[in-house]
Amino acid sequence: MTETHPPVPFTATDYAARMTRATDEARQAGLAGVVVAPGPDLVWLTGYQPPASTERLTLLVLAPDQEPTLIVPTLELPDAEAATGAPRLRLVGWVDGTDPYEAAGALLRADGTFGVSDSTWALHLLELQRALPGTRYRSLSRSLPMLRAVKDRAELDRLDLAGAAADATYAEILRRPFAGRRERDVAADLDALLREHGHEQVDFTIVGAGPNGANPHHEAGDRGIEPGDAVVLDFGGLMHGYGSDTTRTVSVGEPRQEVRAVHDVVRRAQQAAFEAVRPGVSCQEIDRVARAVITEAGFGEQFVHRTGHGIGVTTHEPPYLVEGEEQPLRPGMCFSIEPGIYLAGRFGVRIEDIVTVTAGGGRRLNNSDHGLGVVG
Amino acid sequence: MTETHPPVPFTATDYAARMTRATDEARQAGLAGVVVAPGPDLVWLTGYQPPASTERLTLLVLAPDQEPTLIVPTLELPDAEAATGAPRLRLVGWVDGTDPYEAAGALLRADGTFGVSDSTWALHLLELQRALPGTRYRSLSRSLPMLRAVKDRAELDRLDLAGAAADATYAEILRRPFAGRRERDVAADLDALLREHGHEQVDFTIVGAGPNGANPHHEAGDRGIEPGDAVVLDFGGLMHGYGSDTTRTVSVGEPRQEVRAVHDVVRRAQQAAFEAVRPGVSCQEIDRVARAVITEAGFGEQFVHRTGHGIGVTTHEPPYLVEGEEQPLRPGMCFSIEPGIYLAGRFGVRIEDIVTVTAGGGRRLNNSDHGLGVVG
Repeated sequence: MTETHPPVPFTATDYAARMTRATDEARQAGLAGVVVAPGPDLVWLTGYQPPASTERLTLLVLAPDQEPTLIVPTLELPDAEAATGAPRLRLVGWVDGTDPYEAAGALLRADGTFGVSDSTWALHLLELQRALPGTRYRSLSRSLPMLRAVKDRAELDRLDLAGAAADATYAEILRRPFAGRRERDVAADLDALLREHGHEQVDFTIVGAGPNGANPHHEAGDRGIEPGDAVVLDFGGLMHGYGSDTTRTVSVGEPRQEVRAVHDVVRRAQQAAFEAVRPGVSCQEIDRVARAVITEAGFGEQFVHRTGHGIGVTTHEPPYLVEGEEQPLRPGMCFSIEPGIYLAGRFGVRIEDIVTVTAGGGRRLNNSDHGLGVVG
Repeated sequence: MTETHPPVPFTATDYAARMTRATDEARQAGLAGVVVAPGPDLVWLTGYQPPASTERLTLLVLAPDQEPTLIVPTLELPDAEAATGAPRLRLVGWVDGTDPYEAAGALLRADGTFGVSDSTWALHLLELQRALPGTRYRSLSRSLPMLRAVKDRAELDRLDLAGAAADATYAEILRRPFAGRRERDVAADLDALLREHGHEQVDFTIVGAGPNGANPHHEAGDRGIEPGDAVVLDFGGLMHGYGSDTTRTVSVGEPRQEVRAVHDVVRRAQQAAFEAVRPGVSCQEIDRVARAVITEAGFGEQFVHRTGHGIGVTTHEPPYLVEGEEQPLRPGMCFSIEPGIYLAGRFGVRIEDIVTVTAGGGRRLNNSDHGLGVVG
């Protein structure tokens, strides 16, 4: 276990402040309020995470001049009452056989436009639209995309800890054997190491050896890893409720010249994008900087995804570093910078760090060496 | 491991038949088609399950006189191509920075009403509504609630196997020690036993001892289990892709008289509801039968949830046995019958079996004894 301080727990007051901010930002954006079903927004706003998202409605309603209210199935009330943010919430139970959308309707302005959390089930949104035909809805990622994007000190602390744990995991995996083992064996090692270093949840442990590395979303399979393989390692999860996500590419034994050459391009692209980070620069600009380096080297067509995504209580959230995203970077934003080159049937290379924006530029939360790691 | 035959794998033809049926049923219901995002409906229709539901659109579009089409992020195309149903699908990739909703729009009749899978993210539904303002949507559970409800022989085989594995798990847990261990220790045993008996996924292992049993959604905590406790055990998951879900209530040592009395009421309610099962009876009627027995005994207020839910590729789906659900039972439907009584601060009792409808009545897929099990 990396030597770390445990973060100060969030309090009901912290959650209340977030709910107030969300309500204020909604008003400024011309919304009558915000509705939030179980998922990362609900966790961030209240600390409440029901065991599962289901067909039974759980819904937080935030609106000006109204107490934050959580509509919840009566049989889940004991769980909701135990959430850290609960003391600052009005809890309204509903029992099977009654209509929870009517209960929600009583809290929504009949002609209002509301932000709705992205992962709310369509089932629930359609029922709200039916129960309240005068209301309109916009996804939170369209209407308040930056609500969770700027992290405060307590959140940055957690992201720093998660990043350090990911670095420690990478340092140890370099000492494990690769040749002759299956991708999924190395993935299991990554999973165990992340947990050893404090993660309570592992979201992904991608091990893409040889040609599998050319599929950016390949997870880990039965392929035996062979000497000479380039292997993409992309792993992360949640620690103290906040995410890690890092990628390094390693070579089993002495790197082949073509792997070296491609790796060098990706490394330069990642560095250039990192150096472009500063407040006021647009998200898409970071993508363009990384893409220009790779295109210049002749691999533009092989960089098949955006350059990065935000990270916080999830490992995938706004801001997205993608063409068309004109949001300016602001101090406290945290996101991945992860260019890659994917040569179908041969191999792939990706390098990824989490980066936070400071007044003076970018600061990496991952600090593992960017060189092509050599494993045995 | 229980001695069982492995089920015959589903084929691309099986999935094609399901897609055809969904398209036909949609047309009969007056819909222009069906759109399905990642989740159980997509698994059932195509065999495809991407690693996660995300902000990147994956969408199956089914409409008459049109080839079934799966819109998928280009970087996930290799995963989609590997799905069993893929040979009967047209796959359309889209890359970051382009608008996938326009791609979807080209496949949807501009003035059509479409069924949309329940767990589709609100984000995606709102974008479809924006891109195609003339289209309308209804949740699949409202528009085609019974699409997956009637199981065919191959599905029943899987549900039978899952039920038998749950029974075997219960038989073994009765021989494990309870007194002096924590709820979560027994839950870990249940998890391990379900997997030993063939489950690839465990969805819940509820262990509610003493007063915790009175919270129907209590999972399992640090409470030490004590002699005299009534303990609710509710566990299930997926085996060969199909669900198990069973509940028994046990007593640690000789049962107390009040536990015996309440248990007897629940047992009679469960039996009465089971005996009421036959084709043509409405879902709500089964709920009423169970509720009548419990109300008659003076515990109506303490039966705080519906009587049951369907089961298939999920452990919670239509048909719901709840007041207001007028759908008639049909042969091949599978659902839980799980009445309970919850005495706040004291204890709870629930008994649950999965039941399938046959021409002649109900058949239980769980056959563990209904008596109050006595554990040490």
